[in-house]
Amino acid sequence: MPQPVGTLRHQVTGDVYAEVQTFYAQQMRRVDALDIEGFADTFTEDGEVVHAGGQRQRGRAEMLAGMRASLPRYRDIAVRHWFDHLLIESDPADEDVLHVSYYTLVTQTDREGQVTFQPTFTVDDVLVRVDGRLLTRSRVIHRDAPVEPPAAS
Amino acid sequence: MPQPVGTLRHQVTGDVYAEVQTFYAQQMRRVDALDIEGFADTFTEDGEVVHAGGQRQRGRAEMLAGMRASLPRYRDIAVRHWFDHLLIESDPADEDVLHVSYYTLVTQTDREGQVTFQPTFTVDDVLVRVDGRLLTRSRVIHRDAPVEPPAAS
Amino acid sequence: MPQPVGTLRHQVTGDVYAEVQTFYAQQMRRVDALDIEGFADTFTEDGEVVHAGGQRQRGRAEMLAGMRASLPRYRDIAVRHWFDHLLIESDPADEDVLHVSYYTLVTQTDREGQVTFQPTFTVDDVLVRVDGRLLTRSRVIHRDAPVEPPAAS
Repeated sequence: MPQPVGTLRHQVTGDVYAEVQTFYAQQMRRVDALDIEGFADTFTEDGEVVHAGGQRQRGRAEMLAGMRASLPRYRDIAVRHWFDHLLIESDPADEDVLHVSYYTLVTQTDREGQVTFQPTFTVDDVLVRVDGRLLTRSRVIHRDAPVEPPAAS
Repeated sequence: MPQPVGTLRHQVTGDVYAEVQTFYAQQMRRVDALDIEGFADTFTEDGEVVHAGGQRQRGRAEMLAGMRASLPRYRDIAVRHWFDHLLIESDPADEDVLHVSYYTLVTQTDREGQVTFQPTFTVDDVLVRVDGRLLTRSRVIHRDAPVEPPAAS
Repeated sequence: MPQPVGTLRHQVTGDVYAEVQTFYAQQMRRVDALDIEGFADTFTEDGEVVHAGGQRQRGRAEMLAGMRASLPRYRDIAVRHWFDHLLIESDPADEDVLHVSYYTLVTQTDREGQVTFQPTFTVDDVLVRVDGRLLTRSRVIHRDAPVEPPAAS
């Protein structure tokens, strides 16, 4: 029996936590290699991405077109997406559906080795397990914004 | 049976590793949202924090006062705490007590998207599992300092 | 039975994922503390490192000499290695051999707390489990380089 954990309502096991981390490790290697076809293949056919600016891409064809349009900005830089603080909950109605939230830091290293950073983001994904393999069904990307500090009480 | 791992004297299972990561994912979302009440609730009533400068806060009331005083410095920036290299050992005398050490990187993103960094830190926590839910009982924050390279031998 | 995951051909369990993360947490604490003897002890006797520039060190004696020569560059800075996106596969022929790939970000913090970054790297390791304890048998470090965006189709 797995140890009870109980921090989330539907806390996943260590095996599922490792499965999800492995999925992202593969997905990010593809996007960081500008392998946009391979990246699109990590989404379901009807997969959807809502970007931080509000732009919505639905389906692999739209995603590919969007990525192809943004490729020139990655000329001469090596981009890497870093994740942290994954929250993973399996759907109570379907254990093959996972709700995942995580922090993202994006580095851009130029040919001289200088590293610059994009703003930080928080991402909400829905993953589905199809034939034992995870795919992203939806992704909503939020750019991290300052919050108004609560008033002194 | 879980696979033997044996790297630490009291190496935790994958389930506990995921439990602890999930706990921090939730705790950091609260502190990064400046939800100081929600953050304080992730500590035990007698929880204690020793800051890198040596300042010690004991109990939720003292922690809240300290955090409230530092809120103005987070106006107009989105702060994010990034963790890495967790070492987790369960207490040999009580499996509901966990000794955890980790690296922390802190990003501050302003409204224009410029990212700046605080110095890096290493943190030592004691977590306790109460009614199946983790809480921080103590936290000691160390600012990373240069070490004197060993003399050539 | 662990849950089937199936993302990799030989996807490891949550327990092994935690074991490997713990191994690196310990190994990086040693290198970041400039504990070069302790760091060398995390490699097999015949351990080999191929650096991003192509330099190859084989065996602990060569590794120690190389690290000793590079120590002066860490005077007055606190270096920290951050890992992400671990891909871990056990060798189909020997479950005590693990093939691991990961992203690395290296921070350097000076005495004033200013943080600078080395270029980002991707690392391929072979780990072996000897008497229940992991050791690095080989490490190949790749500096992340821009990729040529695919031509528009």
